[in-house]
Amino acid sequence: MPNDSTFRRTPKISLQAMVNGLLERDKISLSRAITLVESKHPEDKKLALQLIDQILSHAGKSLKIGISGVPGVGKSTFIEVFGKLLTAKGKRVAVLSIDPSSSRTKGSILGDKTRMTELSNDPKAYIRPTAAGSTLGGVASNTREAIMLCEAAGFDVIIVETVGVGQSETVVRDMVDYFLLLMLAGGGDELQGIKRGIMEITDHILINKADGKNEDLAKNAREEYRSAIHLFPANESEWIVPVGVCSATENTGISEAWEAIEQFQKQMNVSGWLENNRQSQTLNWFHEQIDNHLREGFYSDPKIKEEIKKKEEMISSQKLSVRKAVDDLFRNRS
Amino acid sequence: MPNDSTFRRTPKISLQAMVNGLLERDKISLSRAITLVESKHPEDKKLALQLIDQILSHAGKSLKIGISGVPGVGKSTFIEVFGKLLTAKGKRVAVLSIDPSSSRTKGSILGDKTRMTELSNDPKAYIRPTAAGSTLGGVASNTREAIMLCEAAGFDVIIVETVGVGQSETVVRDMVDYFLLLMLAGGGDELQGIKRGIMEITDHILINKADGKNEDLAKNAREEYRSAIHLFPANESEWIVPVGVCSATENTGISEAWEAIEQFQKQMNVSGWLENNRQSQTLNWFHEQIDNHLREGFYSDPKIKEEIKKKEEMISSQKLSVRKAVDDLFRNRS
Repeated sequence: MPNDSTFRRTPKISLQAMVNGLLERDKISLSRAITLVESKHPEDKKLALQLIDQILSHAGKSLKIGISGVPGVGKSTFIEVFGKLLTAKGKRVAVLSIDPSSSRTKGSILGDKTRMTELSNDPKAYIRPTAAGSTLGGVASNTREAIMLCEAAGFDVIIVETVGVGQSETVVRDMVDYFLLLMLAGGGDELQGIKRGIMEITDHILINKADGKNEDLAKNAREEYRSAIHLFPANESEWIVPVGVCSATENTGISEAWEAIEQFQKQMNVSGWLENNRQSQTLNWFHEQIDNHLREGFYSDPKIKEEIKKKEEMISSQKLSVRKAVDDLFRNRS
Repeated sequence: MPNDSTFRRTPKISLQAMVNGLLERDKISLSRAITLVESKHPEDKKLALQLIDQILSHAGKSLKIGISGVPGVGKSTFIEVFGKLLTAKGKRVAVLSIDPSSSRTKGSILGDKTRMTELSNDPKAYIRPTAAGSTLGGVASNTREAIMLCEAAGFDVIIVETVGVGQSETVVRDMVDYFLLLMLAGGGDELQGIKRGIMEITDHILINKADGKNEDLAKNAREEYRSAIHLFPANESEWIVPVGVCSATENTGISEAWEAIEQFQKQMNVSGWLENNRQSQTLNWFHEQIDNHLREGFYSDPKIKEEIKKKEEMISSQKLSVRKAVDDLFRNRS
């Protein structure tokens, strides 16, 4: 584990060593760098600025894949097999996670240490457990910087994993090139379980656990999803969403999924969508961060917090109008 | 037309007369009041504060229905017939519009003066053309206050009309109790034309122009939509979305639509959803307004605007990190 105080005692030497290590693809340096950008300590923040500055020109080249699915869908097993497929092809693979539950419960749905044991021992792979952060926005910003650091450390493919809770898929969608949704075959109305809005951000549907008795069910589900795909509006990228089945435990359907992703990458490089999308994702991130700063600066004042709470109660009981409440809050500020 | 300078010359008398007129259901007072809350003039803003304060306890009781559909779907004709049905039942009906195009083009898709001539001559009806506003957020806030004024003026049903452009449906959805989407029968894959995300905010799908040769087409479309409804996640209100056909020109299917809405109102009153939803809509509005104020205060500085533009260019060409850009912007401010 990196030790924050190390940075503070001998910042310059340590930072330079970290950057050099990172660019030389040393995983320990990478881990330390990610910990540094996650830190909220003012001294660390200064160092993190310099760190990001120095690796900036080395970032932005990797293929970023978001992977989501409900708990129990087999994400870890899938990522393990998928990751091994890529490393066998000579690709370096990093896996990062976004888990909105961890900040609230101090536990983590994704943070299980026994996960992906094979992949984590693969010299071409790097697995970073859940980023800490008090808000999903904070976690997102940390993960975006962790992605940049992995890019600078020479990883060809970066997988961002998320459990399907709250807004986490949308957050991940906004930082990756491709979004793959793992699903399970149920019985009957397959699509009923689909989460609000999820179909509109998905580039690939893969029905996992298509093995044994479950294989026919999975294939039926595939047909249902395929015929439903046209009901949803086309993606901005104009990519036609593939629907496939796979079994992570039996290693079937995984290489087909990768072939589709390679096809996507080729197609989007030609159309220019990949580059455009990355650029607009970064600019959106910038504007989000501005908004966050403005809000944090405002809400961090305990007096304001108290005042807003009181006003909310008065608004709810129709004793105060929104106009008056906002006017009261800002009258002495602008 | 109300004259802004009137308020400023003799504010107190004029304001009190306006409030009294409004509460006595005088439409001219209502129009003047809406114009006042839309005004950006500092003197008017002070008066608008008092106005809203005085009518607050009279607002919040009406049924609010959002109606949307692409241009050509027959919104005006539908609202005319639907509105006449309600006034014939003794209800007082107000129609407001949100039109995001008007602020940009200085024209308006909805602002056609020849629209709804019968309804606009009905003593139980009030029609207010598009609210002016530089941003959709601004238009939205104006419309929310216009709704309150209509409520205070004793209108039982308030229809908020929007053309299906940009984010306007979502904005309307956040201020009404019920959202009705008018559609047209096409040929073949009915749902392909559905706008991203629209199904998830819709409480009612009504296929218009189900007359003459088009009737069979409309009925086929109805069956397609009905079988597709279960593909979308349930609404928060747990309301089962009705799918119907109507002809506004032949006045068929309109009263059935109103019966469904009455059923909704009854059901949501019992479940408590109506009240809860209204309360959370108002609190969301409050927080939106706080965010808008923070942003406006920040971006209104021309130096900041210039700085942000420069930083965007540097970020896009990967010469500047988001972290550094945000740090630069806020270093001397917090």
